[in-house]
Amino acid sequence: MGYYLAVDAGGTSTRAVVLRADGHALGCGVAGSGNPVSSGTDQAAQAVVAAARGALDSAGLRPTDITSGVAGMAGASVFGSGEWLREELVRAGISDHFDIRSDLLATFCSGSFAPHGYALVAGTGAVAVRVRGGEVDAVADGLGWLLGDAGSGYWIGQQVARHVSAALDGRGPATTLTRLLLDDVGIAATTERDADGRPTALRKLVEALYRLRPIDLARFAPLAFAAPDDPLAQRIVAEATDALAATLTAVVAPHVTGPLVLGGSVLSRQRAIADRMAAVLRSAGVPPVLRHVPDGLAGAAVLALRLGAVDVDEEVFERIAATLDTIRAVPAA
Amino acid sequence: MGYYLAVDAGGTSTRAVVLRADGHALGCGVAGSGNPVSSGTDQAAQAVVAAARGALDSAGLRPTDITSGVAGMAGASVFGSGEWLREELVRAGISDHFDIRSDLLATFCSGSFAPHGYALVAGTGAVAVRVRGGEVDAVADGLGWLLGDAGSGYWIGQQVARHVSAALDGRGPATTLTRLLLDDVGIAATTERDADGRPTALRKLVEALYRLRPIDLARFAPLAFAAPDDPLAQRIVAEATDALAATLTAVVAPHVTGPLVLGGSVLSRQRAIADRMAAVLRSAGVPPVLRHVPDGLAGAAVLALRLGAVDVDEEVFERIAATLDTIRAVPAA
Repeated sequence: MGYYLAVDAGGTSTRAVVLRADGHALGCGVAGSGNPVSSGTDQAAQAVVAAARGALDSAGLRPTDITSGVAGMAGASVFGSGEWLREELVRAGISDHFDIRSDLLATFCSGSFAPHGYALVAGTGAVAVRVRGGEVDAVADGLGWLLGDAGSGYWIGQQVARHVSAALDGRGPATTLTRLLLDDVGIAATTERDADGRPTALRKLVEALYRLRPIDLARFAPLAFAAPDDPLAQRIVAEATDALAATLTAVVAPHVTGPLVLGGSVLSRQRAIADRMAAVLRSAGVPPVLRHVPDGLAGAAVLALRLGAVDVDEEVFERIAATLDTIRAVPAA
Repeated sequence: MGYYLAVDAGGTSTRAVVLRADGHALGCGVAGSGNPVSSGTDQAAQAVVAAARGALDSAGLRPTDITSGVAGMAGASVFGSGEWLREELVRAGISDHFDIRSDLLATFCSGSFAPHGYALVAGTGAVAVRVRGGEVDAVADGLGWLLGDAGSGYWIGQQVARHVSAALDGRGPATTLTRLLLDDVGIAATTERDADGRPTALRKLVEALYRLRPIDLARFAPLAFAAPDDPLAQRIVAEATDALAATLTAVVAPHVTGPLVLGGSVLSRQRAIADRMAAVLRSAGVPPVLRHVPDGLAGAAVLALRLGAVDVDEEVFERIAATLDTIRAVPAA
């Protein structure tokens, strides 16, 4: 009887699960950043191994029990040969029958065992893929905070920060986002002014935000959703929705019919955003079937079973989802 | 007979001039970045001293000939006490009767010896000031590439880069900017595609642009002005103009009447942009008198003479401008 290892390696955390051929998830593990692009291959490999060990321990299994495995990983197309990761896994006593696959393909497979369809992820970044015959067939955006990721959490968070700065600077309309952002970074919203006549709160805000890495502005995205009555917040969310619709439109093809799997916090914030994505599919002649997923872990499990020549049908797929939900609900020791 | 030292310390280069009390400029010098914010106070002080030495050599004067001096400098409000710079000047044998003043005040004084008025600078960054009684009375924007500098060269350059990336990615309209940007960074505009179906030129462009510092995207701003028939380029320039108008509006006050001094490459690119700024003044009840200046060097000279208790009248002001133009026209040895 074989056991399979699935890993969802993200920029913030890396999750692993061990499962049986019938899709029954037995144990989970978590570790730090497993993104080889942002953290380097050494740290990514260590995170994958640490998460795998956690999953094995939790399942009461040994490394040698693993038949095969898959890690869903950003940058898979660049770091895809995976020799750097296999070496580390073998050193840990785990099978070298292990592949790296696109994190976006894993996200799609978390929501569907169908061979065709779409995934749209809008978390810190934003990217869409078309999946055909179980493989990534087209990609749009995901070009990073400086050049793309239009409509992402970073994009929204930066808009919040820019508009609040402009409002405090007398260059833009007053907005309830100002109070929300100042509260978030712990700056008092006083009427005090500096020697140059500008609000002290503006100077403090600018100083605080330049101390962050640019990408950290993504943490302010929830503020735009927390002020649904604010015209500026509405405009930011509307523009983000337009951008995400354009990204999805770029990969939708009438001859590829299948579900749209939505991942990332932005797409679960407002019903209207998901509705707009359904409209994009409909107008391209693709029946809109939408599913939200928390990450790519279940999908990595689907891909790990397939790598082990297991046919993932509806029964197996549902068992992965249900058992994974159960063991995830148990807080880690 | 006294001699005066004026320095315009910028992020790219530092320029110095030595002049007589009657405004006659005798010699110029140039050195590297003198911006204490981006380069640190040590390097900034060294650049100021190197540029001053160049100016003294060129004028055939000794350090001890200098009566007083002024450096116009970004970040003057933060690094304004200037003890760090005075120490270095004294070590070089130059007078300690030396002040640091706002680079924006220096820009204003490059265009006018009037006590009141406005300056708007849109180079890599974008910022506006109101000048009243010879001092900065209000400031808007200048909040840097991440949070502000709306309508600046950085802002325009990033828009060019983002829109071209979107066009190559199938998320935005085709634009002549694509060819201009690819040519600029030396990437062939082929129809070749990568394994993920995306244009090879897009991947190469993204790789090339992430190798730059974000602020370096400002170098692509001229492309938006080089494609006046392209609808996307038109939109970028129109949005930049709107943003600069908002920044100027934030400092214009009907009770402060005086010229508007324009600095930075963006404001000299299209007549329509300057016309729009004139309209901003007019609608606030301020008679629009506009002057373009290349930098803050002449203005630093005005401020240096004033620090030496010289009354800068029209005759002195015009002599500074005329003699500075003459010695600047001579290429450095």
